[in-house]
Amino acid sequence: MTSRIFPTAQDAENAFYEALESADLEAMMSVWAEDEDVLCVHPAGPRLTGHAEIRRSWAQIFSGPSRVRVHVAQQLAIAGGMIAVHSVQENFTVEGASRGAQSSDAQPAPVWATNVYLRTAAGWRMIVHHASPAPGQAQAAPPPAGGAPRKTLH
Amino acid sequence: MTSRIFPTAQDAENAFYEALESADLEAMMSVWAEDEDVLCVHPAGPRLTGHAEIRRSWAQIFSGPSRVRVHVAQQLAIAGGMIAVHSVQENFTVEGASRGAQSSDAQPAPVWATNVYLRTAAGWRMIVHHASPAPGQAQAAPPPAGGAPRKTLH
Repeated sequence: MTSRIFPTAQDAENAFYEALESADLEAMMSVWAEDEDVLCVHPAGPRLTGHAEIRRSWAQIFSGPSRVRVHVAQQLAIAGGMIAVHSVQENFTVEGASRGAQSSDAQPAPVWATNVYLRTAAGWRMIVHHASPAPGQAQAAPPPAGGAPRKTLH
Repeated sequence: MTSRIFPTAQDAENAFYEALESADLEAMMSVWAEDEDVLCVHPAGPRLTGHAEIRRSWAQIFSGPSRVRVHVAQQLAIAGGMIAVHSVQENFTVEGASRGAQSSDAQPAPVWATNVYLRTAAGWRMIVHHASPAPGQAQAAPPPAGGAPRKTLH
């Protein structure tokens, strides 16, 4: 694998979108950290964790016939000395719905959330909450990447 | 507004989900940073920025008749000295589709992405990419929070 050094986070972001446009799997994977926890949620997709699982998903996406161009807009960038990133699955139960019966049909789908906390002068505070529906009946575990909708571009 | 100190990011996360379950707007907003850039993407929703806009969205969500319980599972937590969080809108153009005409109908919907980068021994690398479809025709600017689907729980 090509080993690249990105001197800034912006350099890594530029490389990410260049790899996406060129459908270059090696370039894409060179953007991701190798020895750290990594996670990826494609639109309407499950949470993928680990280098191998994420690589497999991009290989699948890049194997399609379409090539896309992507224009990145409205960037907000936050950098801080003390930041914590949590990723969780939120499983909801609506109170009052389907009394007695714990039918999964009557309950909302689980949600993947990325929560980012910043250590401020007033202790730890949330700065980002990004939630999106988890696909399928993934109450206990996310479905394999192959279960993602075909329309998903990335 | 109640001023609360959260000694750890986990304390802030616990308070976030407690506020969500109790539909307590003041408790919810006490979790969010006040003087920093903050952003929130509810499932299938636009990106909301700033304390006032985020507060308005939670007020709207909590005004509904349903109360939910949420069980948080499969947490991944990442904390580092040098982390950068970027939020961007990705606007796609499929090459070869609708040749000549720049019809927005033929193009995929924009996507909100939260990208997190970590400074590793090998420079900056991506550790999180969380993307979800942006609602409506929000090519230039996201629609107001009121435009979000009614089924969205949060």
